[in-house]
Amino acid sequence: MNTQRIEAFSDGVFAIAITLLVLDIRPPQASAHLAADLLALWPSYLAYLISFLLIGLIWANHHEMFQHIRRVDRMLMFFNTLLLMNVAFLPFVTAVLSSSLREHIGLRTAVILYGSTLVIGGIFFNAVWEWARYRHRLLGDSIAPADAKAIARRFMLGPTAYLVGTAIGAVVPVLGLALFAALILFYWLPITHGLHLSRSAPG
Amino acid sequence: MNTQRIEAFSDGVFAIAITLLVLDIRPPQASAHLAADLLALWPSYLAYLISFLLIGLIWANHHEMFQHIRRVDRMLMFFNTLLLMNVAFLPFVTAVLSSSLREHIGLRTAVILYGSTLVIGGIFFNAVWEWARYRHRLLGDSIAPADAKAIARRFMLGPTAYLVGTAIGAVVPVLGLALFAALILFYWLPITHGLHLSRSAPG
Amino acid sequence: MNTQRIEAFSDGVFAIAITLLVLDIRPPQASAHLAADLLALWPSYLAYLISFLLIGLIWANHHEMFQHIRRVDRMLMFFNTLLLMNVAFLPFVTAVLSSSLREHIGLRTAVILYGSTLVIGGIFFNAVWEWARYRHRLLGDSIAPADAKAIARRFMLGPTAYLVGTAIGAVVPVLGLALFAALILFYWLPITHGLHLSRSAPG
Amino acid sequence: MNTQRIEAFSDGVFAIAITLLVLDIRPPQASAHLAADLLALWPSYLAYLISFLLIGLIWANHHEMFQHIRRVDRMLMFFNTLLLMNVAFLPFVTAVLSSSLREHIGLRTAVILYGSTLVIGGIFFNAVWEWARYRHRLLGDSIAPADAKAIARRFMLGPTAYLVGTAIGAVVPVLGLALFAALILFYWLPITHGLHLSRSAPG
Repeated sequence: MNTQRIEAFSDGVFAIAITLLVLDIRPPQASAHLAADLLALWPSYLAYLISFLLIGLIWANHHEMFQHIRRVDRMLMFFNTLLLMNVAFLPFVTAVLSSSLREHIGLRTAVILYGSTLVIGGIFFNAVWEWARYRHRLLGDSIAPADAKAIARRFMLGPTAYLVGTAIGAVVPVLGLALFAALILFYWLPITHGLHLSRSAPG
Repeated sequence: MNTQRIEAFSDGVFAIAITLLVLDIRPPQASAHLAADLLALWPSYLAYLISFLLIGLIWANHHEMFQHIRRVDRMLMFFNTLLLMNVAFLPFVTAVLSSSLREHIGLRTAVILYGSTLVIGGIFFNAVWEWARYRHRLLGDSIAPADAKAIARRFMLGPTAYLVGTAIGAVVPVLGLALFAALILFYWLPITHGLHLSRSAPG
Repeated sequence: MNTQRIEAFSDGVFAIAITLLVLDIRPPQASAHLAADLLALWPSYLAYLISFLLIGLIWANHHEMFQHIRRVDRMLMFFNTLLLMNVAFLPFVTAVLSSSLREHIGLRTAVILYGSTLVIGGIFFNAVWEWARYRHRLLGDSIAPADAKAIARRFMLGPTAYLVGTAIGAVVPVLGLALFAALILFYWLPITHGLHLSRSAPG
Repeated sequence: MNTQRIEAFSDGVFAIAITLLVLDIRPPQASAHLAADLLALWPSYLAYLISFLLIGLIWANHHEMFQHIRRVDRMLMFFNTLLLMNVAFLPFVTAVLSSSLREHIGLRTAVILYGSTLVIGGIFFNAVWEWARYRHRLLGDSIAPADAKAIARRFMLGPTAYLVGTAIGAVVPVLGLALFAALILFYWLPITHGLHLSRSAPG
């Protein structure tokens, strides 16, 4: 109950940020070559797809994280606000990325911007969890400190992998972008892991 | 309780996507012929009406579906995210449609785009339900497997009908569009069916 | 519980529509005469103020209405969707109104458009309530049929008054607009009435 | 339970207003000097950062306030709507501020506008709390009248400090802006205070 409103507020920001992504896909003026104009927007569709799955993923992890958090204090709210600030920023970096893909220029800069935003978001995400599990003050009995630590180790993987992707993207932009897409899919898909985790959580 | 946040997040995306539809109706600059300018926007009003009822309908079906879902796993979240990605894309295809109606050009392309989006959305919708009812793992006791199957069969009707509409629209665009509108109204209106269903659900 | 998600979805649409109103106030490019440019936007501020209080008011009435509704069926969802479609349309008619006030032209048209939207919205609002209280099927025991009828009579006042305002506005636009503003304030302010009602509701 | 929907509606407005802030950061067209173009947007990032933390802060305080409010009446809804109207206005004043910082002109006007909006918002915020604690009618037993008064005194600090900041900003704009940023951080950070408060609240 204590965490209900922070979850509702966060859900709102996640839902709006994820839906605002579509505003970057500008509908072309209808014309005789509408089909071609629509196809030419493929970089926007690609960026929409990647960022939508990304925000959905952060939301799913946020959901998992808050299943274990029982109490909220001011500092947790602060770290959560920083995380949301990062999430709400994603439509901007997505627009820069798709613009760069459409214009065939500036991809290095766009990929570094995109990747850095992911890294920083990952750090904020971990800050929320670290603060919550510090001395187990804000967690409930449903999770043991050792399990909380195991989750922390898994959460740390995100920003680390994104950092590697950003470094690679600084050298070969397209490769960095492909890596981000692969990572997002990879984090979504290992269902067995997810199933196992959600089953172990209550026990 | 376990499904509470995925419903809240989905409600958020539905609510935002449905409200963003109005941004496609650009208010004309006030002038001596304001009334005429407002009337000339009728394609935008029509597209707004159809897509608003459509998203409202998907929401109502989503609501019905989640009344039977008791548990959520990672894969269900993934399919649900794909569904929401489709819903959030609807303001874009609606804008393309209304632009085509206003400019009297490209309607075939716009109708195929609109219809294909509906078909894909219907597939994602069914993916969520199929995953949830597979071995009855994620459903509660309130619904029997046979009833879940009956609902599945009804849910399958949507994408099938939209596919037929798209095929017709590829030949006679206006007819395809009229069919979409008719289908949406048809799915909304058979109240007796709806009443019966919601009554049978808990039993 | 059965009405929880329709309320959450409606709250989302109300919250987004009310917040989108600010997008019509275009920030002027900063310049040496920024203060004057900001003051020149007064019609936008006025339209923002009126429509914000209006949507807040519809939300408050929607909230009151759903405190008595215990069950939801397909038709109620349909009428509620029509109501939300009207609410989500208000940022558009507000933008037309403020544009007309800024350009000193087309006010008659803008006021008629604004008023008609209010009238239609009032009709949809009453449709939801009439459907819910028909044979008392969707209401709970917390309210007697006679009280439901009394509320219906009060809800009917809205569209009637807005219709009068629209008729007056068709003759003297500014007077119609002033009447809308007065009505909105009037419906907000009679606190004693509101207090009385909320106290009588549970009894 | 009675305050649940007003909280959900408010959370929606807070979440949308805070996320709309990003729309003011216009993605530059990709070009050979994309990195430089992105860096030139620093005033927009700064304004985004300040206003995001500000709205997050108002939300956190709103959350704290409503933990003590048990009943809602029409007048409380009215004051809360005024507060939300102020919050939803913040993306506009933020856009004016960042435009002024980018163009190096009109900063005095922009800072006065920003500060005045904060002052008025603070007054509306206090109006909600004063109305709720008047004769303790709308508060629950979890809080003593003396504690409600202590909170009121703390809430009063906000608009007072923002008023001082606005006055200073009218003389030295940059100093006023720095003061707003400092105040927002200061209100976020004193965690010990926050911890103490949330611990004392239930007792």
